[in-house]
Amino acid sequence: MTDSLSALRASVLDANVEIARRGLAPFTFGNASGIDRERGLVVIKPSGIAYDALRAEDLVVADLNGDVVKGSLRPSSDLRTHLVLYRAFESIGGVVHTHSHFATVWAQSGREIPCFGTTHADHFHGAIPITSQLSRDEVTGDYEANTGYAIERRFAGMDALRMPAVLVAGHASFCWGHDVTAAVETAAVLEEVARMAYDTVVLNAAAEPIPPLLLDKHFFRKHGTGAYYGQPRED
Amino acid sequence: MTDSLSALRASVLDANVEIARRGLAPFTFGNASGIDRERGLVVIKPSGIAYDALRAEDLVVADLNGDVVKGSLRPSSDLRTHLVLYRAFESIGGVVHTHSHFATVWAQSGREIPCFGTTHADHFHGAIPITSQLSRDEVTGDYEANTGYAIERRFAGMDALRMPAVLVAGHASFCWGHDVTAAVETAAVLEEVARMAYDTVVLNAAAEPIPPLLLDKHFFRKHGTGAYYGQPRED
Amino acid sequence: MTDSLSALRASVLDANVEIARRGLAPFTFGNASGIDRERGLVVIKPSGIAYDALRAEDLVVADLNGDVVKGSLRPSSDLRTHLVLYRAFESIGGVVHTHSHFATVWAQSGREIPCFGTTHADHFHGAIPITSQLSRDEVTGDYEANTGYAIERRFAGMDALRMPAVLVAGHASFCWGHDVTAAVETAAVLEEVARMAYDTVVLNAAAEPIPPLLLDKHFFRKHGTGAYYGQPRED
Amino acid sequence: MTDSLSALRASVLDANVEIARRGLAPFTFGNASGIDRERGLVVIKPSGIAYDALRAEDLVVADLNGDVVKGSLRPSSDLRTHLVLYRAFESIGGVVHTHSHFATVWAQSGREIPCFGTTHADHFHGAIPITSQLSRDEVTGDYEANTGYAIERRFAGMDALRMPAVLVAGHASFCWGHDVTAAVETAAVLEEVARMAYDTVVLNAAAEPIPPLLLDKHFFRKHGTGAYYGQPRED
Repeated sequence: MTDSLSALRASVLDANVEIARRGLAPFTFGNASGIDRERGLVVIKPSGIAYDALRAEDLVVADLNGDVVKGSLRPSSDLRTHLVLYRAFESIGGVVHTHSHFATVWAQSGREIPCFGTTHADHFHGAIPITSQLSRDEVTGDYEANTGYAIERRFAGMDALRMPAVLVAGHASFCWGHDVTAAVETAAVLEEVARMAYDTVVLNAAAEPIPPLLLDKHFFRKHGTGAYYGQPRED
Repeated sequence: MTDSLSALRASVLDANVEIARRGLAPFTFGNASGIDRERGLVVIKPSGIAYDALRAEDLVVADLNGDVVKGSLRPSSDLRTHLVLYRAFESIGGVVHTHSHFATVWAQSGREIPCFGTTHADHFHGAIPITSQLSRDEVTGDYEANTGYAIERRFAGMDALRMPAVLVAGHASFCWGHDVTAAVETAAVLEEVARMAYDTVVLNAAAEPIPPLLLDKHFFRKHGTGAYYGQPRED
Repeated sequence: MTDSLSALRASVLDANVEIARRGLAPFTFGNASGIDRERGLVVIKPSGIAYDALRAEDLVVADLNGDVVKGSLRPSSDLRTHLVLYRAFESIGGVVHTHSHFATVWAQSGREIPCFGTTHADHFHGAIPITSQLSRDEVTGDYEANTGYAIERRFAGMDALRMPAVLVAGHASFCWGHDVTAAVETAAVLEEVARMAYDTVVLNAAAEPIPPLLLDKHFFRKHGTGAYYGQPRED
Repeated sequence: MTDSLSALRASVLDANVEIARRGLAPFTFGNASGIDRERGLVVIKPSGIAYDALRAEDLVVADLNGDVVKGSLRPSSDLRTHLVLYRAFESIGGVVHTHSHFATVWAQSGREIPCFGTTHADHFHGAIPITSQLSRDEVTGDYEANTGYAIERRFAGMDALRMPAVLVAGHASFCWGHDVTAAVETAAVLEEVARMAYDTVVLNAAAEPIPPLLLDKHFFRKHGTGAYYGQPRED
């Protein structure tokens, strides 16, 4: 949270390079951003630039209204979706959008991703939700912002850090986290979980989600005050 | 369009190497060509030569009748298909033929590829069409040219640059673009889109294509006079 | 068996690095341990440490009650499962737990893996068994130990070295062997066998396991006193 | 055919390394051999040796009865299968056995691989055949030789060079060619064709093989006296 803007730029640059390196965003199908909450500024990938050509100075800095404060390139066309998420979920510090293969397949299929096992439960507290289709007016209007509002509606009453991912119907996924580095990690785990769930359904169309108790056991063994997975942290 | 022949050769060489490098043409299952419209000359891969052994001087230069103007090797056996496409679609400058895996699977299945999501809509304005099967006479006659005519018939009334790809039933795909570099990029995106659509159908046999309005939104956000994706171009 | 503790540490370190290198444990989804039977000591991966950052001195040494004898880091949260297996199966010297993709998919689907071919029969004497779901009390109680007991119950009357792998329902796989190196090899073969069986079922939902006689032929051609595969061993 | 034995050794070594390098034989699931027809000698991989540790001097030389003429290691346990094939198919000079993934999946599924497209037709003149299951007596008797006889029976009346591959039910594939290098190439193409056919069936369970005329067109465009694919050869 107290990162200076240049440290934020560095982590946003790394995050954009990382989503390409991990195969989550073939071509230019993805973008990552981070927010400096104190200054109200968001750093995001410019639109349509190849990941391997990206430099820190190419990143675009915008305020929460979407006005570009710094940078000579156009921001990602998905910027307005990111901004809605930052306003809706105050606990998050980074957002990642990718068309990673299996997450996109679930989004295209119009299905949420059930929690079929502990790999999923270790990272997401329940099924990965999917938005409803955007209406005609939402598509023809402020499309990118409306994509964000569709996510916000779907998350009414939910804790964004216990469910740090969503599928946008007919489109792809958005992930987030306490910072952009965590959001990238979540995007990578989401893709693997989406692939496992896909193959599970193909193998057994009647496969059942794991019981809520086992979901809780695994999720809270890694997250929250009772966690005992990993090494103790000082934060 | 004003490329000299040697610049064209260089880009055709790159394109042939690139389709192999990207895994679109295992073995020698593919070829790329480019056209110099002013001179009416087509540069194409020679037949049956491994991509990693290919040199610029191995490329074959032919006129639009298929007569070899330059080069000591036989041209790709698919040359006559390419020539029909160049004559049918005046706006294109390059053609790529590959047996890339999932595009070929759709072609073998006899199904067009529905537009299930925005990844597809960002690049192709609608379902990827498939030709009808060639008749007995078309196979025993001038087979390679007849493959081109089957594509031309399927595209009656269509804009080749809004739909820069086709599946040939029981065979594989052809892609094209304003130049050969764009055609290779399209072939790569087609393969990813074909794989996404394959997995979407497997996951949900009743999956629906996205609404026409969302298709238009995504396609025209990237293509044409109202485009706002990417950085402004000077061309 | 007579390995000194430092040799055991070295092979456990290698095993943990190897499960990551072979793609069996994306992220930190896996752990390997080895036992020194004479001293009654188990060496295991610390919890939540990335494989590529792991050093021999990070490994944790525990006794069979789970008390840490050496090492400043927390052991893998799955340690108690490993300990139950070492007590239940006296012939084994190493245990590997991974969330490798296709083995996990079978575990999530709640299905044992049938022996559909000789690749499987060369390594496992029959279908890969799956445990029953843990009860409510088993999850809320000593969860990790109870996971081990569920495996032990499933193996009643079985020879752990003829069937060196198990699926835990809704979770993932555990493998073992006469030492930790053998356990890693088994985990790698299990993943390939699980993938072959998955695709076999998808291609032919009515596929039949191979006859018991062919299973015996292949398994015992490689294992036991009548084996004639490979080169003669001196052990 | 007139290769000296040391040249044959070199190409058999290359072939064994190549099947591993191309991912056709995970672990030690495969072996390649070549024959010197004049001397009646077969060079084959030793049993159970890792591909990356293999040296030319490790290769085993045997006569057509299976007696080892040269080499201190045990030959591959599949040697007797290879020998039956060399005796049955006089036109072949090399044999490759692999458990490559998708070819094995078809073998495990008990299904021949239909010719769904021109990729297949370019290399194999029709569906890839599958043997019947071995009988009880064949398994308990001279199992490896009986595997060869099952292939020979299945090929009664067929030309082994027009169909240079077979699936052994419940087991895996064997490929061959005029020499061992060609056999490896065939094994690699078989795997890709098997994968394409698998995905074709999954996408469209009612997919039809291509018409015989198109099969002939593609096969004979590359093979035989009327071939016009590739560059002219001097042989």
